[in-house]
Amino acid sequence: MKLSNFLSIARGDEPADLALRNGRVINVFTGEIVETDVAIAGNHIVGLGADYEAKEELDLGGRYVCPGLIDAHVHIESSMVTPPQFARVVVPRGTTTVITDPHEIANVAGADGIRYMLTASEGLPLTIYVNLPSCVPATHMGTSGANLTAADLIGLADLPRVIGLAEFMNVPGAVLGLPGALEKLVAFQGRVIDGHAPGVSGKWLQAYIGAGPGSDHESTTAEEMLEKLRLGMYVFIREATAAKNLRALVPAVTLQNSRRCAFCTDDRHPADLLDEGHIDHLVRLAVAEGLDPITAIRMATLNAAEWFRLRDRGAIAPGRQADLVIFSNLKDLNAEMVFAGGALVAQDGEAAGDWPIPAVDDSHVRGTVHVEWEHLDFTIPAQGNRVRVIGVVPDQVVTEHLIETVKVVDGIAVADVEKDVLKMAVIERHRGTGNVGLGFVRGLGLKHGALAGSVGHDCHNLVVIGCDDASMLTAARAVSDLGGGLVAASGGEVLGSVPLPIAGLMSDQPVETVRRRMDALVAVAAGLGSALHDPFMAMGFLALEVIPTLKLTDQGLVDVEKFDFVPLFVE
Amino acid sequence: MKLSNFLSIARGDEPADLALRNGRVINVFTGEIVETDVAIAGNHIVGLGADYEAKEELDLGGRYVCPGLIDAHVHIESSMVTPPQFARVVVPRGTTTVITDPHEIANVAGADGIRYMLTASEGLPLTIYVNLPSCVPATHMGTSGANLTAADLIGLADLPRVIGLAEFMNVPGAVLGLPGALEKLVAFQGRVIDGHAPGVSGKWLQAYIGAGPGSDHESTTAEEMLEKLRLGMYVFIREATAAKNLRALVPAVTLQNSRRCAFCTDDRHPADLLDEGHIDHLVRLAVAEGLDPITAIRMATLNAAEWFRLRDRGAIAPGRQADLVIFSNLKDLNAEMVFAGGALVAQDGEAAGDWPIPAVDDSHVRGTVHVEWEHLDFTIPAQGNRVRVIGVVPDQVVTEHLIETVKVVDGIAVADVEKDVLKMAVIERHRGTGNVGLGFVRGLGLKHGALAGSVGHDCHNLVVIGCDDASMLTAARAVSDLGGGLVAASGGEVLGSVPLPIAGLMSDQPVETVRRRMDALVAVAAGLGSALHDPFMAMGFLALEVIPTLKLTDQGLVDVEKFDFVPLFVE
Repeated sequence: MKLSNFLSIARGDEPADLALRNGRVINVFTGEIVETDVAIAGNHIVGLGADYEAKEELDLGGRYVCPGLIDAHVHIESSMVTPPQFARVVVPRGTTTVITDPHEIANVAGADGIRYMLTASEGLPLTIYVNLPSCVPATHMGTSGANLTAADLIGLADLPRVIGLAEFMNVPGAVLGLPGALEKLVAFQGRVIDGHAPGVSGKWLQAYIGAGPGSDHESTTAEEMLEKLRLGMYVFIREATAAKNLRALVPAVTLQNSRRCAFCTDDRHPADLLDEGHIDHLVRLAVAEGLDPITAIRMATLNAAEWFRLRDRGAIAPGRQADLVIFSNLKDLNAEMVFAGGALVAQDGEAAGDWPIPAVDDSHVRGTVHVEWEHLDFTIPAQGNRVRVIGVVPDQVVTEHLIETVKVVDGIAVADVEKDVLKMAVIERHRGTGNVGLGFVRGLGLKHGALAGSVGHDCHNLVVIGCDDASMLTAARAVSDLGGGLVAASGGEVLGSVPLPIAGLMSDQPVETVRRRMDALVAVAAGLGSALHDPFMAMGFLALEVIPTLKLTDQGLVDVEKFDFVPLFVE
Repeated sequence: MKLSNFLSIARGDEPADLALRNGRVINVFTGEIVETDVAIAGNHIVGLGADYEAKEELDLGGRYVCPGLIDAHVHIESSMVTPPQFARVVVPRGTTTVITDPHEIANVAGADGIRYMLTASEGLPLTIYVNLPSCVPATHMGTSGANLTAADLIGLADLPRVIGLAEFMNVPGAVLGLPGALEKLVAFQGRVIDGHAPGVSGKWLQAYIGAGPGSDHESTTAEEMLEKLRLGMYVFIREATAAKNLRALVPAVTLQNSRRCAFCTDDRHPADLLDEGHIDHLVRLAVAEGLDPITAIRMATLNAAEWFRLRDRGAIAPGRQADLVIFSNLKDLNAEMVFAGGALVAQDGEAAGDWPIPAVDDSHVRGTVHVEWEHLDFTIPAQGNRVRVIGVVPDQVVTEHLIETVKVVDGIAVADVEKDVLKMAVIERHRGTGNVGLGFVRGLGLKHGALAGSVGHDCHNLVVIGCDDASMLTAARAVSDLGGGLVAASGGEVLGSVPLPIAGLMSDQPVETVRRRMDALVAVAAGLGSALHDPFMAMGFLALEVIPTLKLTDQGLVDVEKFDFVPLFVE
């Protein structure tokens, strides 16, 4: 709509397209609830107040109206579906804007992966902004399918819907001013740079902030969050499938410090999105934890918009995008209607109206599993009987660094099901290098069989955990045969799978299909003994060498605090 | 300082340049007061906390430390001194950043005037940002010395220290979408656009906001302020020499709505700057009115920085500019030390250290008074005996639109000293057109003589008010002879003057000199009968045809609400 047309409607000379009558509008600027109408013209809000004529009217009957919700940081790939399918899940729950970091697909397919995510999200009712993956690969200690330099990133920075730089995970690179890291930070000076500094504090945190990153979503304690807020960081409170931080952090949010708090989901599996919800779930949880509902809604809207400099959204005011959520209960934000760009796009939890399906050539992001199977060997010759074991922490992406006595049979270290010490392998799958990292893990709880997947943050090599080598090999080969996916196997038999043909990360099926297959697969894993809510999500983070404490990549075992490889066997 | 050097200091490998020990730091992010040190390297803050080594140390003994204060909107010209002299007054009071709108000098000298203000403020301890004058001339109803088009403005927009577009006074132009106005607003889309909408509300305000302007500093009532805040505007609470709004507005500021409130001084004369102060005065006043001191400081720092997208200042955090104010009493912010860019630049109310004096060629902005005296005539032939009279409202820039019976002598309408109805003339002084606007004014209180000045917002034509034509002519000619200035005269005698040779707006003398002469001149005016605190400031706004209600330009009497000329005589 031309500005001159917009103005003639705003000043009342022509009727608006739509008037939402009798709403209770959440005013995120003043923290008030205002009984008023909202008038819309084209994609935008023209004005508030009862005196706008409109071509179409809708009586809200006193229901609440808040701005469309914003997810400040999400890897859409973790939903295991494509952007249009992701939108079909989150928009009916009130989310109208996400800032996605496509660093999963970028680790597999580089700039092609990023361009795929942009193309596949064109024209959706969900506005998908991209923050560019800053650390592909995350470190030199894992092998990814691509390497994005500062020049590569700047080459993408001016594409439509690209904002800035996503979670800058290379903390030592930033703090120590290492050339590769510094080059990226300097290149993005003046743009939004999101941080990623789990557990970093004191001088290191101050140096990190001074280097450029201005937000963080890795706080796990109130103390950590408060230190970051005090130093000027925006804090995104995360409630993911694997990492749940909201209950630990919300009690420390105050009216005084909340203006720099927002919400993010980071990584959520389909079942959690469908059953619990998206940002609406975080708002509900926060309110249940005692946060003032208006403060929670501000965090989910205006605050995120301010950090990302999205001045056209995040509030209900003249000239802003008409992204709106209609709901009835302030203490239980359940979207009854969702408007995006002025159109009703969801009602009663279901998509409404015609949604465009972007036409995408995805050939560049298929067929991405390339493993050299011939010499593959999971054998671990014993070099003593004390080993480092990765300790899974339920509902967290951090792990423990355990030292355990390993079971040795004929000079070979093997899984010890009794003690829940399972074998883990990370198989390089991008370039066929033949790299395999081997180690042990506690916390999966399998009694027999193996799990494998092509989702292994951030390099997304094949991660395999099992009770015996044969099961592990069956599972790993099945993933490869699918062109990527998640598999459970026992002996020579594949017991269940979820194919993820797009970059080995995403399905090409509707989210409900993926969810059913995933539920079935998790049930199979439970049958094998797994006690975790979502063992594949947990497994997917055990190869992530930037999250403490002990992780395994295709190149070996990493002590994240030392930021270096450590031997499996302890002397 | 190179980022790599900064980082080595931030992480503690090398000592900082300066550590301020034992401060009580106002944390504007969280609203807390934190007992800590502040470490500085070069121009920037490197970190907080007690464990930074430093080459130099200063024990603050528990005194408060807050970020350098920010004036969100000021016409430096109104201080009647040049930018370096202005800095010498405001920096010792804690102001380290101002956003100036050089629209006074731009109305006289166009882009040359703007460039002069930028050049004359290079390298000062006060960072002077320029928001470009959006409305030069303010309307078609006054004659200015220059006309700045959208193209002229965009041509200046990328100069260093230029932010965006200043107070968009052409409200009808914006709301009605008139071509010249729309062109400017569209050209500056995506940049900061400050608004100026006194008394505008309802649909017109919504259309105005939708057209682009996102801030306003013209609220005079709490109700007006709240409507603007609710619609997403930033509100700058103003306390100027002529327009004092703080006491009316501060009671409506809450912790909830304060994040979009800031402070501005707009126009302050030297005596007020020297006697009361600058933004520190507004903070003190606000606190005296009951505002929480930390909220007041946030408004004076972070909030303004956020609106103007000045992410390098407005808070005490790693990487931000080391602009700091040290003071002892939270309820009475009196700067004891001021640091700008890490250097001690003021102590105990006086400038400290060596300040650079920018070398400026000011020849383009001198000799700007060009009046055609030959045919000048202040005679008002009576066309009835009922006239419109401009009613001065003490301490406000708005006026009343009065209807009075005028004194008529021999068919000529003349000043009526008994009834305080004085004659007013506005003489075009840029192009020698011979334009003279004539009218009447109440509220100056002169019993004899006349006042004249080359400061007459915004066109800055000669404004003359007096009891008789002879005194008026003497005063006006004296202003011209000075090349610009303020004058009081009686009969043929000049009784006092302040020369303002730079654009007819600013002195080339130190502020103390200007203040002394100004005090003397105001005393002379008082001797002539003026009862106003600062009659020249009041007089300077009587020609401003964008502020309600009745104003006089060189082209005639303007009814601002009708946005059109009206006849002097009422039928």
